[in-house]
This record gives sequence, C-alpha cells and structure tokens, in this order.
Amino acid sequence: MENRRILQIQADVNSALERFLTRQSSGLIEIDEHLKPVAISLAEFVRDGGKRFRPIFSYLGYLGAGGQPSNAALNASSALELVHACALIHDDLMDESDSRRGRPSLHRLFEVLHRDSNYLGSSEKFGTAAAILIGDLALSWSDQMVHATNSDFVDSLDFAKALPLFYEMRSELMAGQYLDVLEGAIAKSNTNRSRKIARFKSGKYSIERPLQFGGALASGKPEILKTYSDFGLPLGEAFQLRDDILGVFGKSEITGKPSGDDIKEGKRTLLIALTLESCNPDQLRFIENSLGNNDLPETDVNQIQNIILDTGGLNRCEEMIERLYSESISALDNSDIDEEIKELLTFMATAATKREK
Amino acid sequence: MENRRILQIQADVNSALERFLTRQSSGLIEIDEHLKPVAISLAEFVRDGGKRFRPIFSYLGYLGAGGQPSNAALNASSALELVHACALIHDDLMDESDSRRGRPSLHRLFEVLHRDSNYLGSSEKFGTAAAILIGDLALSWSDQMVHATNSDFVDSLDFAKALPLFYEMRSELMAGQYLDVLEGAIAKSNTNRSRKIARFKSGKYSIERPLQFGGALASGKPEILKTYSDFGLPLGEAFQLRDDILGVFGKSEITGKPSGDDIKEGKRTLLIALTLESCNPDQLRFIENSLGNNDLPETDVNQIQNIILDTGGLNRCEEMIERLYSESISALDNSDIDEEIKELLTFMATAATKREK
Repeated sequence: MENRRILQIQADVNSALERFLTRQSSGLIEIDEHLKPVAISLAEFVRDGGKRFRPIFSYLGYLGAGGQPSNAALNASSALELVHACALIHDDLMDESDSRRGRPSLHRLFEVLHRDSNYLGSSEKFGTAAAILIGDLALSWSDQMVHATNSDFVDSLDFAKALPLFYEMRSELMAGQYLDVLEGAIAKSNTNRSRKIARFKSGKYSIERPLQFGGALASGKPEILKTYSDFGLPLGEAFQLRDDILGVFGKSEITGKPSGDDIKEGKRTLLIALTLESCNPDQLRFIENSLGNNDLPETDVNQIQNIILDTGGLNRCEEMIERLYSESISALDNSDIDEEIKELLTFMATAATKREK
Repeated sequence: MENRRILQIQADVNSALERFLTRQSSGLIEIDEHLKPVAISLAEFVRDGGKRFRPIFSYLGYLGAGGQPSNAALNASSALELVHACALIHDDLMDESDSRRGRPSLHRLFEVLHRDSNYLGSSEKFGTAAAILIGDLALSWSDQMVHATNSDFVDSLDFAKALPLFYEMRSELMAGQYLDVLEGAIAKSNTNRSRKIARFKSGKYSIERPLQFGGALASGKPEILKTYSDFGLPLGEAFQLRDDILGVFGKSEITGKPSGDDIKEGKRTLLIALTLESCNPDQLRFIENSLGNNDLPETDVNQIQNIILDTGGLNRCEEMIERLYSESISALDNSDIDEEIKELLTFMATAATKREK
C-alpha cells in the first residue's frame, strides 16, 4: 500500500529529523566525547523509527487547514517524533521490554555497553539511568525542534495558536501512560476504562492532536479543528485497537516484538476486556493467571489467542475498528477540506487501521 | 542570613509556581480523578523545594541586564524550577534514593501508594513508572510555563534570544547527568574529569545559564552575558563543591539526606578525587571499598570523614571554594552592572557557597 505524496512527506520528515539530530549530536559530542553513545543511540532510535504517523498527520492537518507547503511547518511537525521517541524509550523501560523494532531496547543497549566496557557497578542500573536521561533529552529536544522553526520563520506559522495544543498533547500522553500503568495494577478489566485510556494514551496523542497542531500552525479556524477532532478521535481509537490486536496476534518477524507481547506485559487492553466479558470461568481464570507472566510459554499464548477467537473477542474488536473507521471517514467526507487532502487523510486512515505492524 | 529583596523574589517565584501548578493540576484531574496523586505529588514536590536558586539567578540576570520589574520575566524564570524538579525526581530514581528533603522520594511515595492500595504486581515497578512519568511531566511543563508568558506578554520579553539558552541549559544538564553516572561506572577518580562534570551538571546549569537566560529575556548585550559567564561559572563550581562537602559532612537533620549520602551512592566528586590524590594505600583501599556501599555503617562514614580531614582534602576543597568565590566576585565588581543588582548577586553568591543544606 503506497501513496507517492505520503512517501514524499515521510522522506521529508526523515530529512528534517536527520538534520536536527546531526546538529544536536555534534553539540553533545563537543561537550565530551563520552557522550557519543548517547548521541548515536538516540539518533539511531529515531532514524529506525517506523511510520512517522504523527508528523504526517500534523503536516496534513496543516495543509488541510489551508497552509501552503512549507519547510517550517514540516520541521515543526517532525518534532512530534521526538516526543514519541521519549514515550517509547521510557515505556520500554517501565515495561522492562528487551526489544523494540527487532533491536535491543535502549536500556538494554546501555546495559550491554556497561558489560562490554567492564564498567563497575550494576549494568542494569546503568542501562536504566541512560534510558531515563536519553528519553529526557528527546523530550527536551522536541520543544527545541518546534522552536528552531519558530526563530527562523517566525512570521509564517501561528505558534501562539499551535503551542497550547502541543503542550496539551504531551500532558495527555503522560496522563494516559500513567492511567495505563495504573490499570495493570488495579487489574480489573473494564471496557469503559480501557476505551478511555486508549483514547488518551494513543488516540488523541497519535492522531487528533497532531492534526490539530498542524491545523493551528496554519491558523486553522475552530470548524476545521473540530473536523480534525471528529475524524481523529474515532480513528485514533481504531488505531489503538489495531495495536491491541497486533500485540496478541502480531507476527514477531513483522512487528519486531515477541509474540503475545501484550499478554506477557499484562496489558489490560480493550481487546482483553471485550474477551473477558464473554469468557467462561475456566477461560477467565486462565487469562487472568497468564496476564503479566513474562515467561509465558508459546503454547499458552496460542491458547489465549484461541480463547480470544472463540469468545468472539477478536471479531468484536474488528467490528469496532470498522465502525470507528467509517465514523471518521464520514466526518471527513462531510467537511469542506480540499479533496486532495481528504484523499491523503483517507489513505492514512486506512494505513493506521489495516497495518500489520 | 536574609535579604528582603531576595526573600520577596523567592516569594514571588513561589506564587508563580503555585498558580501554574494549580492550573495544570486541574487539567490533569479533569482527564481522570485517578490522576490526583500525580498532580498532588508533583505540586508538593515543587512546593517543598528549597531555595529557588535558579529562578532567582534568572530574574536577577534579567534585572541586571536592564529589564524592568515584570511578572512575565518572573514567570519565565520560575519555569527553571520545573526543569529542576524533573532532574531531581529522575536523579533520585537513578540513585535509588529513599528520601529527598527529609521526605520519601517520589518513586518511594508511589511504591507506598501501590502497597497501601493492595494493587497487583510489583510496587517497585509501579513507583519507578510513576517517577519516570511525573519527571517527564515536569520537564514538559517547564516549556509550557516559559511560553505561558510568551503568549501573554509576547512583546515585552526577548524569547528569540532567550530560548536557545534555555534549551542549551537542558541539554547540558542531561549531558552532565550522564557523565556523572558514567564517572561512577568508570571508577577512576580524576580531578580534571570531576571538575568538568561539576561544571556541566551543576555549575552551568545552576548559575551561569539561569543568569544568561534572564539576561537574554531583557535583550542583554553580549558583554553582559559574558559577565554572567565570568561570574557564574566559577561560582557554579564553588556551589557544586559546597554540595560535595555537604554530601559527606552535611548534618542529615539539616540536609534532609542520610549522612555520608554521596559515599553510599559512590559519587566520584571532586572532594573525593582531591582526597584520593593524597591518600596512603590503606586509606585509598578503604575509600574505594566503601564507595557505592549503600549499607555503609556510620563508623565507616566517620572514618572516611576523618581521612578527608587528615589528608587535607577538605581544606583544599574549602580553599578552592574561597578562590572560585573571589574570582566570581571580581568579575562582578569589574562589570558595569547596576550597584543594587551587584549587591543582590553578591548576597546570592555567598548564599550559594556558604550554605548548610
């Protein structure tokens, strides 16, 4: 599934990130050459990082609100990827994940550096400290990248309108992450709560807010920001539901994560909540006992997959994705956004909900 | 040691933080009432937080560069305290510190919440996740607080000049923190490296950059920013050296930290590096074996204190503080900063280097 215009935006986002990270890395290494592993690992983490959904949605939001093609808007949009890098680096640390996109997670990378260098003390503690600080750096740099634009092109973009949305997005992300952790600890699955968490942690953060941020950069009117919300919120939820499904059924050679990863991490996703609602007591006990078991054998993962199939949990999830997708597309169709941008957003909506990784 | 004008600035900084945090907290709790502990604990962490050195230096930097008394400048200066909150929260987590200012550290606080609420899973993991996310929130909010000013008073302050210094300061902080962790792992004390780390981790971050940030907000000329550097860098180093001394000799009822905390954490401070240079082999072995031992008995802490006294390490450290202090004061005296601000900066220089906590 390809779209030339989207591929071009993606390539431009990658270039913008590359330019920014190259400059920042030099700055770090000038302070001390021992910071090389920090600079390199963060740049590689961002470089290898997937789909650029958030920058693309932001830039499309900008174009859809009438913004003219602009490097400044593209640069500010690309900064969202640095927020995302912080979220993933810190998330992997909190989840104690060993890998990300088929490579060692950042804290594990620095554990290995510690071990290979024969450093003193605990390798694990060293990895933890490095991942905390590198995530902080990414978060801190996200603002810097937004404002790098600000000083160069201060007149062409509406920062006064866009910045509050950027800040709102980051607070909602942290809030959603905390609620997600809390949900695992409370350990009572509840479809309403799961939907709410999915909305904040992923839906708003991945789609609605990026669209609105971009729209605001182009001084978008309230109606267009409302359209982005009507399109982005259901789509964001569908996006997260696809994530839930891939977290259980995803092929590890495609997702880059161990199979059944979400089960092992004990994530109480909506898919799990929907399944538990239709389980018999044996199935329920089996799932509850497996959630959060990091060493869960492959056969047990398969058995849970079967339960999710048998109870209709997967079907209900797929139906919800379908319904949410349609809801978002009709919001788009009913708007007066430029036809070409509508097409690109529709393409992105499909990519976000029908992906395999 | 008191100064009415400084006390007034400190009180104004506290009010600005209180106002901002109250607004942000409401926003969080509107998302979900389960975020109350997040909002409350971060607000309390900032509220209980000491001396406000960085905001005060920033605001004095602003006034010294000719800025007129302004709530906007005070607000932007106060935002530095949120960067500091992130640094401390994440630092306590990396160091596995149990307490901060005589109260449980944030990750321990959420461990207790987890235990008291009979949540599932590991209390420690929950505490870690909460501290990571709350630190991220503080860092993210620091930008927001700087720019809250930006949108309200966009014309009165020179953000184009000041923001790069703000970003530089944060990168230097993270860089210094990483080098500090690395130094503990490399475990070869070296006075040159210790001084460099002290310069980045604390000196530039605590004094030089805040002064320059404030100065730039008032469109300070290059000469004044240079003066702030000449005053701030040696003073910052002296500030850190006082920290080193308090980390070994500080009275825990005043510092709010366990006595000999730095030894137990294995910090390779300049005080330790200076001491090791003059140790006999037995003393050297004793110190090397004690560094990083979290359960070091009180008698061993005392013995290390005696070694630091006997070898003259403490004296050399005090002499360096004295020399650095004089250096910074002469840079100030030789500048054409307004006499009243000179006096306030001199007062602050004394407070930073002669404090007991």
